[in-house]
Amino acid sequence: MSGPSGSSASTALLTDMYELTMVAAALADGTAERQCVFELFARRLPDGRRYGVVAGTGRVLDALRDFRFGEAELASLQGSLDERTLKWLADYRFTGDVDGYPEGELYFPGSPVLTVTGTFAETVVLETLLLSILNHDSAIASAAARMVTAAGNRPLIEMGSRRTHEEAAVASARAAYLAGFAATSNLEAGRRHGVPTAGTAAHAWVLLHDDEVSAFRAQVEALGTNTTLLVDTYDIRQGIERAIEAAGPELGAVRVDSGDLGVLARQAREQLDALGATNTKIVLSGDLDEYAIASLRAEPVDSYGVGTSLVTGSGAPTAGMVYKLVEVDGRPVAKRSSSKESRGGRKSALRRYKPTGTAVEEVVHPVTVTPERGPHDRVLPIPMVREGEPVADLPGLEEGRERLRAALVSVPWEGLKLSRGEPAVPTVFPAS
Amino acid sequence: MSGPSGSSASTALLTDMYELTMVAAALADGTAERQCVFELFARRLPDGRRYGVVAGTGRVLDALRDFRFGEAELASLQGSLDERTLKWLADYRFTGDVDGYPEGELYFPGSPVLTVTGTFAETVVLETLLLSILNHDSAIASAAARMVTAAGNRPLIEMGSRRTHEEAAVASARAAYLAGFAATSNLEAGRRHGVPTAGTAAHAWVLLHDDEVSAFRAQVEALGTNTTLLVDTYDIRQGIERAIEAAGPELGAVRVDSGDLGVLARQAREQLDALGATNTKIVLSGDLDEYAIASLRAEPVDSYGVGTSLVTGSGAPTAGMVYKLVEVDGRPVAKRSSSKESRGGRKSALRRYKPTGTAVEEVVHPVTVTPERGPHDRVLPIPMVREGEPVADLPGLEEGRERLRAALVSVPWEGLKLSRGEPAVPTVFPAS
Repeated sequence: MSGPSGSSASTALLTDMYELTMVAAALADGTAERQCVFELFARRLPDGRRYGVVAGTGRVLDALRDFRFGEAELASLQGSLDERTLKWLADYRFTGDVDGYPEGELYFPGSPVLTVTGTFAETVVLETLLLSILNHDSAIASAAARMVTAAGNRPLIEMGSRRTHEEAAVASARAAYLAGFAATSNLEAGRRHGVPTAGTAAHAWVLLHDDEVSAFRAQVEALGTNTTLLVDTYDIRQGIERAIEAAGPELGAVRVDSGDLGVLARQAREQLDALGATNTKIVLSGDLDEYAIASLRAEPVDSYGVGTSLVTGSGAPTAGMVYKLVEVDGRPVAKRSSSKESRGGRKSALRRYKPTGTAVEEVVHPVTVTPERGPHDRVLPIPMVREGEPVADLPGLEEGRERLRAALVSVPWEGLKLSRGEPAVPTVFPAS
Repeated sequence: MSGPSGSSASTALLTDMYELTMVAAALADGTAERQCVFELFARRLPDGRRYGVVAGTGRVLDALRDFRFGEAELASLQGSLDERTLKWLADYRFTGDVDGYPEGELYFPGSPVLTVTGTFAETVVLETLLLSILNHDSAIASAAARMVTAAGNRPLIEMGSRRTHEEAAVASARAAYLAGFAATSNLEAGRRHGVPTAGTAAHAWVLLHDDEVSAFRAQVEALGTNTTLLVDTYDIRQGIERAIEAAGPELGAVRVDSGDLGVLARQAREQLDALGATNTKIVLSGDLDEYAIASLRAEPVDSYGVGTSLVTGSGAPTAGMVYKLVEVDGRPVAKRSSSKESRGGRKSALRRYKPTGTAVEEVVHPVTVTPERGPHDRVLPIPMVREGEPVADLPGLEEGRERLRAALVSVPWEGLKLSRGEPAVPTVFPAS
């Protein structure tokens, strides 16, 4: 993990206790070196969602690099684990392979989003960290993609940092950008991940001043005519009048953060036009989610600021992915009890497309069985790590953004509806 | 922020852009030095919740200490801000005061959870970071407290790390412990915050082995008879039989992670007793929330493992607190438009109690108006920071845990119901 100042700190303790007790027991009984395949996947999409968006694999690779048990980590484990295990942890380096869906790819129930291969001990200890990153980032990106679809061509600004854990905020801004948001308010996301940042002023700015027009004048003086003035601290109509009084008709934008946003946008547009500010844009914010954004489609809005609903995954704050052992020394394994059945064996996936480019099904198949591949079909997993080292030229955040844009075009049209429904692309599992 | 290895990194960029553009504009127009009071509070509790639990103030004080703009932070802001502002940020030290509700205290709509006093520039830049921490941690602690109430005297183990951002996981474990959870699976929460850690084995442990009984034998060999064996990988009845076969009737516990948990707990108890393992405990996990826990009250369960619902705030992943400017140079200020009205002026709070110890109302009053104080009434905010320095002997995590336990006893009995309802203690706002 990169710390806020770019310092690299260990990620090794972002882990559940039981992974280390399993390592201890496996070192003791000689099973630690068995060759294993773990698969990371979602049994289902959140209720009614039609697709999921893979996000976080870029962060996974950084976290893997920093998965080291240093002095501080080992000291805190003294007394809970035997000496042999502590020694093994001190020497820990992941030497296995990782394959997976690149960021921005869509996933469906059962898609093998990440496959981790290596000895039992070296692969089992990664469970919590890999899941934390992918479950969080994919949940945010999946919600964000629906908002981007709802907004059409209008840009979205992510401004939810204050409504989530301070580090989750940075990852959320990254995931939102991956999903097509134009910018974020989060400065650390700008520094760490290169996400464009944006922001001008809050209500406090107006309240700080003796009156609204002097607040606006000072803001324009400091930040230029192209700034965005927040006009709803007192009376919106008066706020817009004063905004143009302070900035002139070349004002960049006005922002409205409360009230009946559709009605207010129409009124604001009329008023701005009447004042000659025909190029002044209208930014809306204030408890927007994908449904509210969709309902504003016919209104004269230029861009949206989205906060709470984005960082909380708009009702689905976690992607619910799991990390399951599917193969031991070449033998498929799977839990068999009750409701949580899994499919054993290492798998790959092929997405089938019509000649028109529309996706029709996702074939999740044992690696030992290669399905017939049509001219438009696409193998989904890519190699990410080989013998512990990241593969060269892995796709970055901008490529992920482009990948998702293309992937959403390939989804059958019902798949982009915001209403609840079945997965847009069915997953099929040919028998091994 | 303490990094995972205890390294101290800057928290300064865990901030929204607009706070820095406001600082720039305020330095330009001379308002940066105006004396301000910001109040952090929740306008309402999440839908139907009857109380909120304050959590995160301990982390806030650490984050405040590390709020420094070093070279890396300043370099990333070059080009977005003028030289005067960058110079001001480079010299930034918070020199103001903070008062607030200590961790583990209950809060209600309008409770002044945190009050920050200082110049406009030094107080406005803290908005995002303070809100991120308190909104996250309080959401988790508020959900956790309901689970603790539902569980009665049975211990709860937090095991949700994999379902939330990797750093949010650490903070969640801390908040759950504050709220009365007995332990966490998260190792970093153990190291960083001293939360007791727990964990033994996952399904992968059983699948790794050639058969269930050899997996159990190896675990008992390595971790002792007092370990917890996970018995639902294949057939639960057979699993329990093999568990006792491997460990003998002194086995510490069995864990069941799937299926109809109430029925399974009863069957497991009967089977264990019949096998002579009358002291072997039963641990349940698998998609538990406060309602599921309450429904298991009559079943022979010894402890619960809770994951997803805990780290997602059980339907309320953010506390929705806001940070509002309420006073400038001694003059009360407040936003006045539409739905988001606020009360201006610096406030304090008194909670009134019956002689029996039951809380009856929370009086949130201007600091200029001291309400009559009965013999059982309690002033809620405490001084936390004076002239930039933390006050000595601030209550720690264990004290917060104790405070919440006592506070929940004081809540009117309807307030502890899990069903939706009004806040358990009404907030009243005497006029200034």
